[in-house]
Amino acid sequence: MPQSFLPPQRTLMGPGPSDVPERVLTALARPTIGHLDPDFIAMMDELKGLLQFAFQTRNALTLPVSAPGSAGMETCFINLIDPGDTVIVTQNGVFGGRMRENVERCGAQAILIEDEWGQPVDPHKVEDALNAHPEATALAFVHAETSTGARSDAQTLCALATRHDCLSIVDTVTSLGGIEVDVDGWGADAVYSGTQKCLSCIPGISPVTFSNRAAEHISRRDHKAQSWFLDLDLVMGYWGDSEKRTYHHTAPVNALYALHEALLILQEEGLENAWQRHARHHHALTAGLEALGMSFIVAPDWRLPQLNSVRIPAGLDDAAVRTRLLNEYNLEIGAGLGPLAGQVWRIGLMGYSCRQDNVLLCLNALGQIINEADVTIGASSGIQAAENVYASI
Amino acid sequence: MPQSFLPPQRTLMGPGPSDVPERVLTALARPTIGHLDPDFIAMMDELKGLLQFAFQTRNALTLPVSAPGSAGMETCFINLIDPGDTVIVTQNGVFGGRMRENVERCGAQAILIEDEWGQPVDPHKVEDALNAHPEATALAFVHAETSTGARSDAQTLCALATRHDCLSIVDTVTSLGGIEVDVDGWGADAVYSGTQKCLSCIPGISPVTFSNRAAEHISRRDHKAQSWFLDLDLVMGYWGDSEKRTYHHTAPVNALYALHEALLILQEEGLENAWQRHARHHHALTAGLEALGMSFIVAPDWRLPQLNSVRIPAGLDDAAVRTRLLNEYNLEIGAGLGPLAGQVWRIGLMGYSCRQDNVLLCLNALGQIINEADVTIGASSGIQAAENVYASI
Repeated sequence: MPQSFLPPQRTLMGPGPSDVPERVLTALARPTIGHLDPDFIAMMDELKGLLQFAFQTRNALTLPVSAPGSAGMETCFINLIDPGDTVIVTQNGVFGGRMRENVERCGAQAILIEDEWGQPVDPHKVEDALNAHPEATALAFVHAETSTGARSDAQTLCALATRHDCLSIVDTVTSLGGIEVDVDGWGADAVYSGTQKCLSCIPGISPVTFSNRAAEHISRRDHKAQSWFLDLDLVMGYWGDSEKRTYHHTAPVNALYALHEALLILQEEGLENAWQRHARHHHALTAGLEALGMSFIVAPDWRLPQLNSVRIPAGLDDAAVRTRLLNEYNLEIGAGLGPLAGQVWRIGLMGYSCRQDNVLLCLNALGQIINEADVTIGASSGIQAAENVYASI
Repeated sequence: MPQSFLPPQRTLMGPGPSDVPERVLTALARPTIGHLDPDFIAMMDELKGLLQFAFQTRNALTLPVSAPGSAGMETCFINLIDPGDTVIVTQNGVFGGRMRENVERCGAQAILIEDEWGQPVDPHKVEDALNAHPEATALAFVHAETSTGARSDAQTLCALATRHDCLSIVDTVTSLGGIEVDVDGWGADAVYSGTQKCLSCIPGISPVTFSNRAAEHISRRDHKAQSWFLDLDLVMGYWGDSEKRTYHHTAPVNALYALHEALLILQEEGLENAWQRHARHHHALTAGLEALGMSFIVAPDWRLPQLNSVRIPAGLDDAAVRTRLLNEYNLEIGAGLGPLAGQVWRIGLMGYSCRQDNVLLCLNALGQIINEADVTIGASSGIQAAENVYASI
């Protein structure tokens, strides 16, 4: 007969979820109230404001979708893409492929622009595709590829979309809170994210924001969206005008308490400070991993500080090492996905997980294990390299 | 600048969410671990077993959808209904209408069978519709209408569906854990529920279960489901064989801790005991509400013990009374929906909210307010009537 589940206390340095701070878990566990309670509705208004802050936008159509990031992605596509549309989709990792799936399931045609995994999206190829497909209505790309750790140039890509009269659909699941996301500055039209990466909230909610241009597109639609649950026309009856909220679905009340608290923490720290913290610990981790003989798959200019993909040293067994990290150090790092499976580890420094003690814990654990396999690499050389970086910045 | 949100401590006697016990909130706030962590995967297996217990099924395809009940509903429709299909949909409240929306957004035709709000679904009308539409592939109905408090005869309706070679799609959002739900006994094919009603878990997750017949239908599909997020072929890569779980989307880890704990509580109490508890407090509440001059909109045989819809006494202002209950008693009851808006209150006795102290709190509060408007009704007459019932059973 099952017993209460008591999870181990892990240190989460994979591709997400990241460590959730006690303050957010405490908020999460506050008493559940009704989704139409006036006190809850007041909190929802604050939450929208906090999301606008995090996204750097004034978009009125900004809200947390009541489901994980994949549902945020789907919200963008099913509300903006009509059957028969042509959509330029870039792919340089797993999540571009998921975008393509979304386009095709909307009955639209995806023009796939591929770049090597680990490379940023190439704006020249995108421009060529936009020129070759004047009928395209949207450009979809991933700002921060969680499967590789590569950043792409969102500013340039959004500008290309606008110049070609396309809506831009941008995945910021792994970027929001970790590096600059500037929705209004980019002129992005539909942007979705996740809670369990650099916001260090529990997984399960997807913040989204839509430009006025995108909102007008939605209001001009002459057919219903293919999903009732994610239809923004309906969802906004609940999340829109706070004076007359009407029931759509029951909001995930406690998860939204947690998101409110996680965003408060971000606001208290400040966006720029959060980005700088991610960069600082990334530099220390980088020095340490390189001292342990590991190399990055992403060029320095395009590396995400919050997701470090490094090649697994020769002679080490991917799964065996990750199991040891989990069992001996309570440390989770991420495996490679797709063509990178077995080739790389993905070491996350996301949100609350992005701390000096975590950097040193990870370098110590990897140092011990690597040293056992190759004595020419000192067990503490990773930590020393990181400490040097910390001392110098 | 926003501050941490400190919700009031309400007593939730509306149509859900219900009161969440401290044990579930404590489970919810346990440390987040990875969605592919071996410890988490072991918990998932237990969770599937607990859901099978609650649904009374051996269906292998039983899992919690990572989003609210509306997404559970959508999971059933988009995986079982193909464009061009004909689906018999019954409507005797809000949620039948939502089912119809789902059918139509799948590109299928809904044959709507209507019954008055507050009445159960009439099996004769359903049988007539099945006879008139031999091309129908599914019958969809709501077991427990949250908008009215009426139960329908799931056993008979599922048998009708099977006899006409239709899949049955059954909404048990409000019934699961409060009255008998017997998925295998009914021979139901696709059943969805919610966590925030009689399971007294936080809102945001939707348990679903599919018969082998439904699972075969899914595996025989020659086209992709219109939703990537809710495509069971993909979801089962994560929730299926526990030996080789593959990433689909990031599971809502903490919400699943909470659901595991809520189901443990149900298992400890026992299904029959839980149903009897709901019936007992319903009888006491009924006596009290009637003593205060309120009448039910549903006939006794079809009343849901967990959702009591009563006519608002003449001379009382719906919204004003609910606001007083909230402000003076921290008590939430539900408003009417659709044609019943302003006509009825919906008083929930769901899961952990279904307790003697809540029954008495509610009757005391309503008694005070009703007595102010009509001195012929004693302020304590509701409580006295309920106490008499408790003394007699």
